[in-house]
Amino acid sequence: MRGASVKYMPIGVIHSCHTEAKATPIQPVYAAGCAGRAEIFPEYAEGLTDLEGFSHIYLLYHFHKAGPPRLKVKPFLDEVERGVFAARTPFRPNPLGLSIVRLLRREGNLLFLDSVDILDGTPLLDIKPYTARFDRIDTLSNGWQDALSEKAVAERSQREYKRSDL
Amino acid sequence: MRGASVKYMPIGVIHSCHTEAKATPIQPVYAAGCAGRAEIFPEYAEGLTDLEGFSHIYLLYHFHKAGPPRLKVKPFLDEVERGVFAARTPFRPNPLGLSIVRLLRREGNLLFLDSVDILDGTPLLDIKPYTARFDRIDTLSNGWQDALSEKAVAERSQREYKRSDL
Repeated sequence: MRGASVKYMPIGVIHSCHTEAKATPIQPVYAAGCAGRAEIFPEYAEGLTDLEGFSHIYLLYHFHKAGPPRLKVKPFLDEVERGVFAARTPFRPNPLGLSIVRLLRREGNLLFLDSVDILDGTPLLDIKPYTARFDRIDTLSNGWQDALSEKAVAERSQREYKRSDL
Repeated sequence: MRGASVKYMPIGVIHSCHTEAKATPIQPVYAAGCAGRAEIFPEYAEGLTDLEGFSHIYLLYHFHKAGPPRLKVKPFLDEVERGVFAARTPFRPNPLGLSIVRLLRREGNLLFLDSVDILDGTPLLDIKPYTARFDRIDTLSNGWQDALSEKAVAERSQREYKRSDL
């Protein structure tokens, strides 16, 4: 039995210095210095209460510029095709994005962020607190990524993005 | 400007021993021994290639039994109302769930899991690999959770769930 489709409404929009997918860093850990803002629509602003106590938050968003989904993709970090669910590419059956970003401060319905690897104008679907207790996991293996050197990953991940203050 | 709504189709369904929301552990780290399976619909199975190399994966899913959204909630772990985006409750404007679970093995389109804190029958929307490089963050602060003792959290989180093999 197939489930019914689900429908979500954006709760806000992400502003960043990244206006081109090809020049957007591929993971927040390699986007230090990339400022951004999450603007939450006023009707949801009350839901941000207490968020400023967390140094890191998850943003869940819609990859609005992703092309058609693929089941095998060549990840940015690799030369070999991998299953889409073993990669973080935007070209997914459901183009859901997940980034862990640094929360610098909150001003009303605006969140000021660092380490933003997200395209400007991206629709925001949800925000969750990142906590060391629940989310900092001792992995036993990291799949195809275990074969990559830290240097090669860092070089590929940063790409040619502009750093700017937003 | 408000963004348009987004529509997703389940890529599969999560099977677990949790049939009651009230008896489901609240985070995977407190659900060790809770087996589960993710069944991916056959048309997406090719996208699972290479996933078995990762010891931990993110499941993104639809909280199909969540009630109406609230902007302030009393988290399971706390006695004080918090903003919904500073909590992991299902009662969210967009009822998107996120769990980091242990991937034990893959058999075709079936993923055998441990540390499952998800209700049986939950529609699965996406799977992403969890990697130490991108996802294991040194937090500076963990908001209202920093005030809770590890013992109190563990007691509340486990709840009265049954452990079983699936």
